[in-house]
Amino acid sequence: MEKNERSTPIPGKEKEVDIINIKGIEDIGYVQPDSILLNSLAPEENTQCQHGLYFQDGERRVDYILTYHIKKPSSSRSNRQSSRFTDNAFTRSLRRGTARLGRPPPPQPRGVPEVASQDHSMDYHEDDKRYRREEFEGNLRDMGLELEKDEDTKTPGVGFVKIHAPWHVLCREAEFMKLKMPTKKVYEVKQCSGVGAKINTLVNKATEPLHPNVEENRAQNVKHLSYAFSREKQHLFDLSDRDSFFDSKTRASIVFEVLKRTKCTKAKYSMGITSLLGSGVYTAAYPLHDGDVDGENVEPNDRKLLYEEWASYSVFYKYQPIGLVRKYFGEKIGLYFAWLGLYTQMLIPASVVGVIVFLYGCATVDNNIPSMEICHPRNNITMCPLCDRACNYWKLKEACGTARASHLFDNPATVFFSIFMALWAAMFMEHWKRRQMRLNYEWDLTGFEEEEDHPRAEYELCVMQKSLKKEHKTQKTEKEKLTCRDRLPAYMTNIVMMLLMIGVTFAIVFGVILYRISITAALHMSNNPTTRSNVRLMVKTTAAIINLVVILILDEVYGAVARWLTVLEVPKTDKSFEERLIFKTFILKFVNAFTPIIYIAFFRGRLVGRPGSYLYVFESYRMEECAHGGCLMELCIQLSITMLGKQLIQNNLFEIGIPKLKKLIRYIKSKRRSFQEEEREKKLQRYETDHFLEPFAGLTPEYMEMIIQFGFVTLFVASFPLAPLFALLNNIIEIRLDAKKFVAELRRPVAARAKDIGIWYNLLRGVAKVAVIINAFVISFTSDFIPRLVYQYMYSPDGSMHGFVNHTMSYFNVSDFQDGKEPMDPHHLGYQVEMCRYKDYREPPWSNTPYVVSKEFWAVLAARLAFVIVFQNVVMLMSDIVDWLIPDIPKDISLQIHKEKILMVELFMKEEQGKMQFIDSMTPCDGKERNNHAPIARSRSIPHTHSHTHANNF
Amino acid sequence: MEKNERSTPIPGKEKEVDIINIKGIEDIGYVQPDSILLNSLAPEENTQCQHGLYFQDGERRVDYILTYHIKKPSSSRSNRQSSRFTDNAFTRSLRRGTARLGRPPPPQPRGVPEVASQDHSMDYHEDDKRYRREEFEGNLRDMGLELEKDEDTKTPGVGFVKIHAPWHVLCREAEFMKLKMPTKKVYEVKQCSGVGAKINTLVNKATEPLHPNVEENRAQNVKHLSYAFSREKQHLFDLSDRDSFFDSKTRASIVFEVLKRTKCTKAKYSMGITSLLGSGVYTAAYPLHDGDVDGENVEPNDRKLLYEEWASYSVFYKYQPIGLVRKYFGEKIGLYFAWLGLYTQMLIPASVVGVIVFLYGCATVDNNIPSMEICHPRNNITMCPLCDRACNYWKLKEACGTARASHLFDNPATVFFSIFMALWAAMFMEHWKRRQMRLNYEWDLTGFEEEEDHPRAEYELCVMQKSLKKEHKTQKTEKEKLTCRDRLPAYMTNIVMMLLMIGVTFAIVFGVILYRISITAALHMSNNPTTRSNVRLMVKTTAAIINLVVILILDEVYGAVARWLTVLEVPKTDKSFEERLIFKTFILKFVNAFTPIIYIAFFRGRLVGRPGSYLYVFESYRMEECAHGGCLMELCIQLSITMLGKQLIQNNLFEIGIPKLKKLIRYIKSKRRSFQEEEREKKLQRYETDHFLEPFAGLTPEYMEMIIQFGFVTLFVASFPLAPLFALLNNIIEIRLDAKKFVAELRRPVAARAKDIGIWYNLLRGVAKVAVIINAFVISFTSDFIPRLVYQYMYSPDGSMHGFVNHTMSYFNVSDFQDGKEPMDPHHLGYQVEMCRYKDYREPPWSNTPYVVSKEFWAVLAARLAFVIVFQNVVMLMSDIVDWLIPDIPKDISLQIHKEKILMVELFMKEEQGKMQFIDSMTPCDGKERNNHAPIARSRSIPHTHSHTHANNF
Repeated sequence: MEKNERSTPIPGKEKEVDIINIKGIEDIGYVQPDSILLNSLAPEENTQCQHGLYFQDGERRVDYILTYHIKKPSSSRSNRQSSRFTDNAFTRSLRRGTARLGRPPPPQPRGVPEVASQDHSMDYHEDDKRYRREEFEGNLRDMGLELEKDEDTKTPGVGFVKIHAPWHVLCREAEFMKLKMPTKKVYEVKQCSGVGAKINTLVNKATEPLHPNVEENRAQNVKHLSYAFSREKQHLFDLSDRDSFFDSKTRASIVFEVLKRTKCTKAKYSMGITSLLGSGVYTAAYPLHDGDVDGENVEPNDRKLLYEEWASYSVFYKYQPIGLVRKYFGEKIGLYFAWLGLYTQMLIPASVVGVIVFLYGCATVDNNIPSMEICHPRNNITMCPLCDRACNYWKLKEACGTARASHLFDNPATVFFSIFMALWAAMFMEHWKRRQMRLNYEWDLTGFEEEEDHPRAEYELCVMQKSLKKEHKTQKTEKEKLTCRDRLPAYMTNIVMMLLMIGVTFAIVFGVILYRISITAALHMSNNPTTRSNVRLMVKTTAAIINLVVILILDEVYGAVARWLTVLEVPKTDKSFEERLIFKTFILKFVNAFTPIIYIAFFRGRLVGRPGSYLYVFESYRMEECAHGGCLMELCIQLSITMLGKQLIQNNLFEIGIPKLKKLIRYIKSKRRSFQEEEREKKLQRYETDHFLEPFAGLTPEYMEMIIQFGFVTLFVASFPLAPLFALLNNIIEIRLDAKKFVAELRRPVAARAKDIGIWYNLLRGVAKVAVIINAFVISFTSDFIPRLVYQYMYSPDGSMHGFVNHTMSYFNVSDFQDGKEPMDPHHLGYQVEMCRYKDYREPPWSNTPYVVSKEFWAVLAARLAFVIVFQNVVMLMSDIVDWLIPDIPKDISLQIHKEKILMVELFMKEEQGKMQFIDSMTPCDGKERNNHAPIARSRSIPHTHSHTHANNF
Repeated sequence: MEKNERSTPIPGKEKEVDIINIKGIEDIGYVQPDSILLNSLAPEENTQCQHGLYFQDGERRVDYILTYHIKKPSSSRSNRQSSRFTDNAFTRSLRRGTARLGRPPPPQPRGVPEVASQDHSMDYHEDDKRYRREEFEGNLRDMGLELEKDEDTKTPGVGFVKIHAPWHVLCREAEFMKLKMPTKKVYEVKQCSGVGAKINTLVNKATEPLHPNVEENRAQNVKHLSYAFSREKQHLFDLSDRDSFFDSKTRASIVFEVLKRTKCTKAKYSMGITSLLGSGVYTAAYPLHDGDVDGENVEPNDRKLLYEEWASYSVFYKYQPIGLVRKYFGEKIGLYFAWLGLYTQMLIPASVVGVIVFLYGCATVDNNIPSMEICHPRNNITMCPLCDRACNYWKLKEACGTARASHLFDNPATVFFSIFMALWAAMFMEHWKRRQMRLNYEWDLTGFEEEEDHPRAEYELCVMQKSLKKEHKTQKTEKEKLTCRDRLPAYMTNIVMMLLMIGVTFAIVFGVILYRISITAALHMSNNPTTRSNVRLMVKTTAAIINLVVILILDEVYGAVARWLTVLEVPKTDKSFEERLIFKTFILKFVNAFTPIIYIAFFRGRLVGRPGSYLYVFESYRMEECAHGGCLMELCIQLSITMLGKQLIQNNLFEIGIPKLKKLIRYIKSKRRSFQEEEREKKLQRYETDHFLEPFAGLTPEYMEMIIQFGFVTLFVASFPLAPLFALLNNIIEIRLDAKKFVAELRRPVAARAKDIGIWYNLLRGVAKVAVIINAFVISFTSDFIPRLVYQYMYSPDGSMHGFVNHTMSYFNVSDFQDGKEPMDPHHLGYQVEMCRYKDYREPPWSNTPYVVSKEFWAVLAARLAFVIVFQNVVMLMSDIVDWLIPDIPKDISLQIHKEKILMVELFMKEEQGKMQFIDSMTPCDGKERNNHAPIARSRSIPHTHSHTHANNF
C-alpha cells in the first residue's frame, strides 16, 4: 500500500511558480476533474488576498496548523504527493481494514526495496516520522477533518499541514464538548429601575471615555439565551451564517479537541498529538491569527482591533475590552486579563490611602515627641559604644536624623493601614469571585465543568517503558501506571533539591549579612568621620544592590530548576504538571524574594547582647544592630529597592527585551540562506508569519509575577505604605505590555475554557492569610508602636509620650566592662563617662540582679504578643465577615441565571405544545384504540405514543 | 360552566359500600362506556391489594397526593362530581380559551344564583378555594398530569387528589431537569490490582458482617454509564421496563417540579403550589410511601427493607445502606445520613485516643509532683482567707483532693489531645469532601448544578401587597420586589431581638453565678464544716442543673424565636429562608449552650483581687474563685453535665417522646367521631395512612443538633477528653433513631437533589476554626500547663517540678489587712499567723512595691500569649497542610469520571459512524453534486446534510 503511493513519480517544479503548481498537483489527486476548472481560475489571487487564511480553494478556512521538519526539500515533492494519495478512498478503506484486524502491522521502513532505493538517504527516524504523520493524518481524515499540505513555502525545511474542520465535524464536536451557543431566543437583561437606573446612566456617561471603542464591550440590554449545542436541537440556533456561527477561536479549539483524541496506534504504543509533538514527528501545532496587526490595506479583523484598542500604551487609562479578548483568545486568557484589570483597579484606592498614610507621617514628623526629645538640643544622653574596644561613646543627638525618618513609617497610621490592607485583600478576593461569576454568566460558562486532561506525552512514554520492561519479564501486557515506587527517586530529588535551593538562598542572604558586618567592623576601625558616613551609605547601598542582583539571578535559576524538577516527576496530566510547577516555583521565588526582608524585619537587632557582653557570630562578627529608630526604616529601604528593582529590571526590561531578541535571532537564522528577500517577506502566508512568532508558553510566568507583587503589596505593607502605588504604576504598563505580547509577539494560543483562575486563587488567599500574621508581627515587634502604647498607659506619669526615650534606655556602669572590652578612647566625647545608656529593657546596675531583663521587658513582650493575637484574630474575623457579607454571586446575575432557566423551560414547553397541536390536528382519531386508560389521560396519550415512535425512528 | 357541573345531582350512598360506590360514580363521568366493563370487574380487589398505591384502574401509580379540607362531607359528592366533569374535553377547551383571552374572568361566587341557592351554606372562602383548586387542577392536567379525586375516604373532612405522571410527562420533565439516568452501556469499575486488590478483598471479608443485607450497598464491579436523559437519545437508555425506569422517588420529584411550576393565574395575583398550601387551598402535599413497614403478608418493598436493615437498633454496628436510603429518600437526605455515618465513624478513633489520654491522666496522677507536694503530709503552708472577715486561714493540704483530680484533665497529654482533635477535625472535613465526591459520582450528580428556587409564597404575597399599594397610588402596575427599605423594620427587629436574646442568655448565666456566689457566701458564714462541704457540693450540682434546664428551655424558645424572626424577614426563596433560619438558630443555640462554659473557662477566677483587697460585684458579692487546682476541673464538670444532659434529655427523650405523643393526639382527634373502627383502620388507603404521619420538617433540626455536638467535641476538648466517646455513644443511637423517624413516623419527603450539605459544611469549618483558638486559650490560660513549663525552664533550680507549688504562691503579711477585713477568728488553725500565702504572682510584702504583679507574672503571661500564637498558627498550618495533602476528589473517582467521558464520546462516535455507513450504503450517488469541495470531504458531507434535514423534520 505504501509502495503504490510512492511509485507515482511527478516531475518537480521551480519555486517561483509554486502556488500554481501546488494547485495543479493537488488536482491530480482529485477524483472529479470538473471541479478543477471551477477552482483553478483565480487561485493565486484568491490565496494572496486571503494570505493563507484559507485552503487553496479559497473557501475552507484554515483552523489549525501542524508543522514538521523536512530534511531534504528536493524530496518533498514526492512526499507530498504520497500524502495526497492517502485521500484515495481505496487506500483509506484498506488502511481502515488493517486497523480493524487486531494488531496493526508495524511500519516496514527498510523491508520494501523500492522505498529504500528511492529515499535511501533518508534515515530510519525521518522515515518513521513520515509514516507516523501519514497514519495520524489519515486518522484525522477519518475523524472528518480536511487537510491540505504545503511544503514548498518560502520557509525552507518546514512543512505545513493545514487543517479545516467542516461543518458537520464542528457540530459533532460542539455537541461532545457541550459548548453553550447563543440561541435565536433573545431576552432583556434587567436594568435597575428608578434611582438606580439614573445613577447607572450617570456613571456610564462619566466613564464613557474610559471604555474602549469595541463593540463587544458595550453594556448590552439583550442577551441571547444560550443552550448546549445539540444537533437535534439545531432549530434553536441561528444557523443562517454557518461560517461565523463558530468563531475562529472555537473552531481552533474544536480541532484541537479532535487532535488530542486522535491517536497513532500502528506502532508499538499509541501516540497522541502531544507525543507526536514531543518526539518531533511534528514540530509545532498552532491555530492561525486572524490577520495582520498593521500595514496598509489590511482588512479589519479582531486582532487588529485588539492591537489598536487594547495592546497600546496610548489607551492605558481605558478599561480593557475583555469581551473581545475572550472572543479572540478564549476564556482562560480572558480571565487572566480580567483578573489583572481588577487587581489594578483595586490598587487605586489602596495607593490613595497609602499615599495619605505616608503624607500623614510626613506631616506629623515635627510633632512626634520621641524624635523631638532625641533631637532636642538640650538632650545630653551619653550612649554606650556599639561594639567592643573599637567603638566609642556617642551622643543620642546623633540619631536625630534616623529617628525623624523612622517616624515616616512608624506611626499609628501604619497600623490602620495594615488593617486596611488586610481588609482590602479580602475585598479583592470577594470582588474577584463576583467578577468571575459575572464573566461566567456573560461567557455562558455556567454549568461548564472542567475535564480531566489527557495524559501528557512524557507520562505515556514512561508508562510505555515500564510496561515494556515488565513485559520483558512476565511476558504479559497489561495496562500499567506509575506508582509511588516508580516516582520515589524523583520525589526524593525534588525534596533534596528544594531544600538545597532554599539553603542556597539562606546562604547568600547570610553572605550579604557577613559582608555588611565586616565592612561595618572595618568602618569602626577608621577614625575619619567623613569616611564613616560615606562608607555606611555605601555599605547599605551595595548590600541592597547585591541582594537585588542575587534575587534576579536566582529567580531565573529557580524557574529553570522548578521546571526541571517537575519534568522529573512525570506528572500525569498537563493540569497536574502546571500545578506542581507553579507550587515549586512559587515556594522558591517567594523564599528568594522575601528572605532578606524577613531577616531585616524579625531577626536583625534581636540577639545583640548588651554593652560589655555583645554577642558574636563566628567569634569575630558582631550581630547587626538596627539604627536607633528601629529596624522599620531599614526594612522599608530594603523593600522599596527590591520591589522597584524587580519590577523595573525583571518585568519590563526582560519582558520587553528578551522576546524581541529571540525574534531577531529566529529571523536571522531563517534568513541566513536567502538575503535579499525582504520584499518577499510581505507575501508570506499567514501560517508562515505565525510560525516565526514565539510559541505560547502558558500564563504561569505572568501570574507568578503578579503574585510576587501581591506579596510585596500585602506582606510588609505596615512598613512600606507606598508599595500599592508602585504596584499600580507597574501594572498599568504591565497590562499593555502583556497585551502587546499576546497580540503581536506570540503564536495564537488554543482557546481554553476555564471557569476560574484555579490554583492562583488559592495562592492569593494563602498570601493574604500570611500577610495578616506578618503584619501583626511587623507592627508589634519591628515597630515601636507597642512600647509607646505601653509607656503611655502604664508608665507615663502624665499619660503623654514625654520621657519615653528615657524609659526605653537602660543604664550601664562603665566599670562593669570586662577587660579588653572598654573603648580604646574613653575621652572621645571630651569628658569622663561613668554611666552610659543603651536601648534595651534591663535592670540598672544598682538593682539586685543587674543587667537582667527587667519587668518592663516582660510587660512589653506580653503586650506585643497580645497585640499579635488580637490583631490576627480580629483581622481574620473581619476578613471572614467581608467574605460572608458579600455574596459570591452578584444578585442580578443569579436573577438572570434563574430567568434563563425559566425561559428555557418555557421555550421547550411552547415547542412541545406546538408539536402536540400539530399531531392532534393530523391524527384526530388516533386515540380511539388506546382508551382503556382513564378518560383524563386520553388526549395526553397521543404525544406519548408520538414521542416513543419518534425516538424509535431516530 | 360551573353551573352545568354543579347541577348534576347524584344520590348519596352509605359509607359501608364506599369503595364500590366510588367506582360506580366515577364511571358515570367516563366518556367511553366500554372500558367500564373492562375495569370494573375486580376494582375492589385490585384497590385493596394495592392499598391505594395506584389509581382505581390499578395501573397508574399514584405519584403524589394533594389533600384539602372539605367542610361539609354531605356536599362532597356533588363537589367531586363537578371536578370529574372538568375532564370533559369541551369544558377544558373552553377554559383554555378563556385563559387565552387576556385577563381571565374573576370567579363569581355570589353572582350566579344557582350556585348560591345550592350551596348557600358555603361561605365565600370555601368557594374561592374550590375555584382555585379547580383552576389549579385544570392547569395540572394541561401540563399532562393525570388526576383522580377521592373525597369519600374513611378520613372525614379530607379530600385527596391523587396525581399520576404519565410516561411522556416523566420523559419531558426528566429532560428539563437534566436528570442523569443510567444508559444501557455498562463499564467495569477499575479495581486496584496486585497487593491492593488482596488487601481490599481481605478488608471486605473482615467487614462482611458489618455490611447491611441490602443489594444496593454491595460494592459493584460494573456501573452503568449515565447520561442526562433526553428524548432524542432514548435509544441509549434501557426502556424495556418503563414502570421502573423512573423509580418512585424520581416520579414524585418530577411531579413536584411540575407542581412548583404550575400557577393559578385567574385571580388577581398568581399562586403557585406553595401559596396554595400557605393559604389553605390545599392542606398538604406529599408523595406516598412505598408500602407498609410491618404486618403480615406485606409484599417486600424498599421501605420495609429500610425498616429492617437500617431503622433498627439491632443493626447498630452495621454500615448504613446509604445507596438504598438515597434511592428511597433522595440525595439530600442520603447525604445527611452519609455525613452522620462518617462523623460517627470518625468519632471512633477520637474516642479511643480520648480514652487513652484520660487513662494516661489516671495513671500518672500519683507521679505528679505538684499534687504530691500539695498532698505531702509535711506540707505546712498556711493559706490566706478566701474572703474578707468571714473566711479563715486554711492549710494547703485541704486542696489535695482537687489538685489530684485536676491532674486528670490538666496534663501534657491534653495538649497533645487538643492538637490531635484539631487535626482530626481537619481530617474529618477532608474525608467528608472525598466521601461527598464519591457519592456524587455514584449517584450521578457530577455536572448537576443547584438551581435557584422559586420564590416563597410569603414573599410573593408581600410583593403583591406592595404592588397593590403602589398601584393604588400611581395607577400603574409593574413588577415589584422587596427593597432594603421594605425590609428595614424586619432587619431592625431581627438585630434587636437577637441582641435581646443573647442578653437574656447572659443575664441568666449571670443569675446562676450570683446564686452560686450568694450561697457560697452564706456557706462561709456557717461554722459547721459538714454543712460546708455538703452545701458546696449542693451548690455546684444545683447550679449545673439550673444551667442545664435553662439551656434546654431556651433552646426551644430560641428555635421558635429564630423561626419567627426569619418569617418576619420574608426571604425570597426557600434556600435563603433556610440559610437565614439556620444562621440565627445557630448563633442563638451556640451562645446558649456555650456561655456558661466560656464563663468558667476564661472569666471565672480572673479578676479576684488579692487578700485584703478582694474585688466585689454589686459591693457585696465577691467574684468567684476556682479551686486551687485551677478552673479546668470545674470546666470539665460543667461540660460533661451540659453535654450528657442535652443529649439524654433533648435528643433522645424529646425526639422519641414528642413525635409519639403528637401521633397519638392526631390519631385520637381523628378517632373521636368513630370509636369502634379499629378493624377498619387496617383497610386504610396508603394515602390515608400517610396523611396521619407527621409532615417532614426539613433536616435543619437534625443537622443543628449534630453541629452543637460537634462544638462540644472540638471546642473545649482540651478540658474534657471523654467528649468524643459520649458523642459516639449518642450518635450510634441517633442514627437509628433518625432512621426510624424518617422511615416510619414521617410522611415521605420529596426527594431533593443536592451535591453537598451546603451551609452546614461552612458552619462545621467555622466551629473547627474557632475550636483551635479556644483550645489554645484553654490550654494556656485555664490550665496550669504554661506556668509549669515556665517554672521548669526558667526558675526551677534543678529543672524538675519540685518547688513549683511554692513558686506560684505569693506572700501576704497579715498586718496589711485593712480594718474590718481580717478574719474574725485568726487563731482558727491553732497558731498565730503572721504571713499567709495566696495563689498569684505578686511582689512579696518586703519588696519596694508590695503586692504589685511581679516580673514572674509578666513572664508567664508572655509565655501564655506566645503559646497561643504558636499553637494557633501551627495547628492552622497543619490543618491547611492536611487540607492540601488530601485531594478533594479521590483518585479512583477522578479516573472513573475521566473514563466515563471518554466512553461517552466513543459511544457517540460509534453511533455516528454507524449512521454514516448506513447512509453511505443508502445513497451511493448522493455526494456527486456537492463535490466542489475538496475530495477528502466527500463522504463526510453526507451526514452533514442528513443531520440538518433531520433536525428540520423534528
